[in-house]
Amino acid sequence: MKPLSGLSEHPLSGIVRPVTVIQAPRLSERLEVPVVLLSETFQFTGSFKFRAAYRVASSVPNRTLLTASSGNFGQALAHACRLLGKTCTVIMPQTSARVKIDAVREEGATVDLIDVSRISRQARVRELMGQMPEAYFASAYDDDWVIAGNATLGMEIADLDLPVDLVVAPVGGGGLTAGILTGLRERGNNLPVTGAEPLIGNDAARSLRGGCLVANETEPATLADGARTVSLGLRNWEVLRDGLTGIVEVPEARIVEAIRLLFLMANLKVEPTGALAVAAVLTDPERFRTRRVGCVISGGNVDPGAFCSWIG
Amino acid sequence: MKPLSGLSEHPLSGIVRPVTVIQAPRLSERLEVPVVLLSETFQFTGSFKFRAAYRVASSVPNRTLLTASSGNFGQALAHACRLLGKTCTVIMPQTSARVKIDAVREEGATVDLIDVSRISRQARVRELMGQMPEAYFASAYDDDWVIAGNATLGMEIADLDLPVDLVVAPVGGGGLTAGILTGLRERGNNLPVTGAEPLIGNDAARSLRGGCLVANETEPATLADGARTVSLGLRNWEVLRDGLTGIVEVPEARIVEAIRLLFLMANLKVEPTGALAVAAVLTDPERFRTRRVGCVISGGNVDPGAFCSWIG
Repeated sequence: MKPLSGLSEHPLSGIVRPVTVIQAPRLSERLEVPVVLLSETFQFTGSFKFRAAYRVASSVPNRTLLTASSGNFGQALAHACRLLGKTCTVIMPQTSARVKIDAVREEGATVDLIDVSRISRQARVRELMGQMPEAYFASAYDDDWVIAGNATLGMEIADLDLPVDLVVAPVGGGGLTAGILTGLRERGNNLPVTGAEPLIGNDAARSLRGGCLVANETEPATLADGARTVSLGLRNWEVLRDGLTGIVEVPEARIVEAIRLLFLMANLKVEPTGALAVAAVLTDPERFRTRRVGCVISGGNVDPGAFCSWIG
Repeated sequence: MKPLSGLSEHPLSGIVRPVTVIQAPRLSERLEVPVVLLSETFQFTGSFKFRAAYRVASSVPNRTLLTASSGNFGQALAHACRLLGKTCTVIMPQTSARVKIDAVREEGATVDLIDVSRISRQARVRELMGQMPEAYFASAYDDDWVIAGNATLGMEIADLDLPVDLVVAPVGGGGLTAGILTGLRERGNNLPVTGAEPLIGNDAARSLRGGCLVANETEPATLADGARTVSLGLRNWEVLRDGLTGIVEVPEARIVEAIRLLFLMANLKVEPTGALAVAAVLTDPERFRTRRVGCVISGGNVDPGAFCSWIG
């Protein structure tokens, strides 16, 4: 199978699936903003997280990896470890989407389900690391290998020479946007990058406004489960504080509307976090009106029941 | 935006979106058959029909086009005519999916809704052609320009040099499979092509078995609305009678199962006709067990309500 011609080599060439670029004329007409979708929903394991996971799992010498993830990073790390012949344990909240728990188990990883009202992820990580001293603990975002893995998406965007004036991407722990910025800049590309964050978990937007890293009091109960983070990672903040051109704070209702529009007008199945960039355009259309926007769709893994409650 | 490198020029290069190739390891494991998805769900207007529609509308001298279509070809022709500054009328059954009627109107075409229990599509075409003698009547499948347009998909499959041993594609009027065969063979590529047809409308399978073109008594009430055809077109039959390696007859329940598996295991939103190729693998896995199968996903346009009744 021949490669995409626009793409130069990057550290994960031939391992990750290149980003899927989808022109969306019907959606653009509806939004009154010309958008191009940069979809990672067809990435291996269904989200961009596989880029980071493979980079971590293939770079550290440890044969065992441990992570705490509400789903996509866990699934991605489990898949990467299976490909590399390593073992993997994933700490997940009991409330995680059923499809995500099943998918992690299907990859042969051990799932450690926790009740987050009784023990925090961090505390459980410490417990398990005490029992597994040989393991590498992989943060889903606050890790240099994670940023380096996600940077391959920025490199692809740079190499594709897309007709866009800026890129909008979801912000949770900041691993994706920090990676995109790092990859673009490594390729000498100055395309602006704007974040899209749930309004009810707007720690990154507040951090950017105030110039110092702040945290939510608890994990925000946003639909966008990939953005249920208490704060940006320290490594991510170092990249984002001067790198992002801004963050749009997205109400929950706009996330649902974006999921529905992507289904109806672009034939794309996305998960709530994956809809954040399009939801940002819906939230603040004036900000984007005269610009061509590349919307990063970070992933597509979602339970059918929840999905149908949003598109019905 | 740079083109896909594997692709040589074809008559619709730069106009149609190249086929989206999706490796689907989870789905392949579930099917126990290695499949690659060749998706036209992100083609302009959401199905492969835009290839044929643009080729017809740009090739005939007439300024007005008329067609009878339960949806995708109508939407595609309407879009092509809008791009080309031509006018378009689409005869549609009142029972067509709401999203398809809306989409045709959104493109600026005139929709002529008929009650198929009172007047056949053919009779209504004759009526309207009497009123619009200057119009070109475009068959959705039995037309040399339609086959030539769909042949561009076969050329792309040939040029991409995919790791597949055969291609499976839906059969309704036969425009898609005839086009794929024509395009592959024009490129000197001998990849076998197998059809996937609803069991309850198996005129093409019966025609192939008997060696002569036979018709269903009425339009079959299959979920796969793109295959609700009474018979193959004459031009299509000429290509398919010796071109196809066979046709798998797909029960309705397998179509629903394929829609659901594509949603869960490949993050792909497909319409029932678009699911036929994967449904064929589910129906007759032994036929495909030792081969790598390229499954053509013909389109993705479907009402949310119907879709959720299948994936729920």
